[in-house]
Amino acid sequence: MAIIECVPNISEGRDADRVARCVAACRVHGVTVLNASSDASHHRSVITLIGDAAGLKEAVLGLCAEAYASIDLRSHQGEHPRMGAVDVVPFIPIDGVTMAECVALARDVGAAIADRFEVPVFLYEDAASVAARKNLEDVRRGEFEGLADKLTRDEWVPDFGPRRAHPSAGACIVGARMPLVAFNINLATTRLDVAKKIATAVRFSSGGLRFVKAMGIALDGRDAVQVSMNLTNYEKTPVFRVFDMVQREAARYGVSVLESEIVGLVPAGALLATAEHYLQLTGFSAQQVLENKVRSAT
Amino acid sequence: MAIIECVPNISEGRDADRVARCVAACRVHGVTVLNASSDASHHRSVITLIGDAAGLKEAVLGLCAEAYASIDLRSHQGEHPRMGAVDVVPFIPIDGVTMAECVALARDVGAAIADRFEVPVFLYEDAASVAARKNLEDVRRGEFEGLADKLTRDEWVPDFGPRRAHPSAGACIVGARMPLVAFNINLATTRLDVAKKIATAVRFSSGGLRFVKAMGIALDGRDAVQVSMNLTNYEKTPVFRVFDMVQREAARYGVSVLESEIVGLVPAGALLATAEHYLQLTGFSAQQVLENKVRSAT
Repeated sequence: MAIIECVPNISEGRDADRVARCVAACRVHGVTVLNASSDASHHRSVITLIGDAAGLKEAVLGLCAEAYASIDLRSHQGEHPRMGAVDVVPFIPIDGVTMAECVALARDVGAAIADRFEVPVFLYEDAASVAARKNLEDVRRGEFEGLADKLTRDEWVPDFGPRRAHPSAGACIVGARMPLVAFNINLATTRLDVAKKIATAVRFSSGGLRFVKAMGIALDGRDAVQVSMNLTNYEKTPVFRVFDMVQREAARYGVSVLESEIVGLVPAGALLATAEHYLQLTGFSAQQVLENKVRSAT
Repeated sequence: MAIIECVPNISEGRDADRVARCVAACRVHGVTVLNASSDASHHRSVITLIGDAAGLKEAVLGLCAEAYASIDLRSHQGEHPRMGAVDVVPFIPIDGVTMAECVALARDVGAAIADRFEVPVFLYEDAASVAARKNLEDVRRGEFEGLADKLTRDEWVPDFGPRRAHPSAGACIVGARMPLVAFNINLATTRLDVAKKIATAVRFSSGGLRFVKAMGIALDGRDAVQVSMNLTNYEKTPVFRVFDMVQREAARYGVSVLESEIVGLVPAGALLATAEHYLQLTGFSAQQVLENKVRSAT
């Protein structure tokens, strides 16, 4: 069975009852709520859903109905940038589903949101209609307050819906993307400049690996610094290659890797590929993993 | 839900109908037949089942009833050593189940086989009652033909059942063990002596790692030799440690690792631990694997 993850971000992180009603709206047949977490200073909540395409479409439309009835961005202020009451809705392929199918789902759901709620919809990341809309930060730039002006520009005609902001709900940014892997490497040094230099070397924006975002940060109370990274496509820029590159760059400063950590969830494939790499495995298939075989047989 | 693997070996590998009836007897509620393969020269078939404890007990007893009715070891000759019509029945913990539970299941099923069919039962590996019965080869030594004599010796009183061989079915060896990982490392050399020396260095029997069986073999038609290994407990002797040791030993002869391969199935844990090791991951848990989280939530 196809398993798709969907992680709607809504612009409400303070009123627990309101968030609970939004989460409840996501509980439809074929969808499981994996997690919901609110951040009061961001004034934002992140809901993690898994399910099939039909279930997720129903869940997201239900969520929009609830959120649009209760969230008014005209009186919303938080630390996190946002353009819509339902701000971002990414669909993420997990198992038995292709990226192309998630892109199709994003288009279908985006069109339905625009149609049912008269909210302009932008498609982003793998679902983007043009290269300039791939990056979420570019689409969201100007935020809710700048949306009316943004929509007057020809390059920001929405992918679906009216060419005017919804008065209280703003716009909605819908897309498809690979699962993120939050991967941090701690270095056995207190030299923050080394972590920053390595971050600069490995990240895409300054010339490094295509699907790496990175920054060097101090670790309070520890004799270590961190290269903190997001890997935005672990199939094309694999974890082991990032690890090896950071280790090699650190050696150039006489610094060793102390340890690494994965924050939150990681797709099994990212770690299986890592084992496959370091063991120099040949002819290996995920169907050789006992649990996968058991699951496909039962 | 607990998932246990059970791999009965029966002494029939030539009569396809008879094997099919034995396999059919294993298809009970709660049990899935993953695989069945027969070897005519061995005159033996290996049936791979997965299921829960109650289902597997019923499947194995049904298999015994069918096999004991149709297999007569007095007229059985094959290349593979055997002591029983149903020769070996190992239970293997896969998911959500401990080794102790598999040992208890082996004892329960062994007692039931002895009771219902008047077949002497020996317990082996993790289910062994004494150290001298841990190793399957030691328990089976003497085979069917030597069984009557073996049973007269005080150290070979069966764990369950009569102290006499069943006339046509012999004895049955029941136990619990970890999943095997068949792991081969190919070396970029044609020097068979190097593969043999490394096998000697890493295997338990000649002073190496506790849960490694190994031999050095030539690879016909390839400019490579192989260290062919069985890892009998990948939790205690992990794949990455075996790989590193073989690589280090090979370097001592100026030889590089060309590639490795896993033959057949491997538990996910063996590869996750490998990724964890080489990435120097800290604080990592299998619950961070997205697919595991999805599965436990749905």
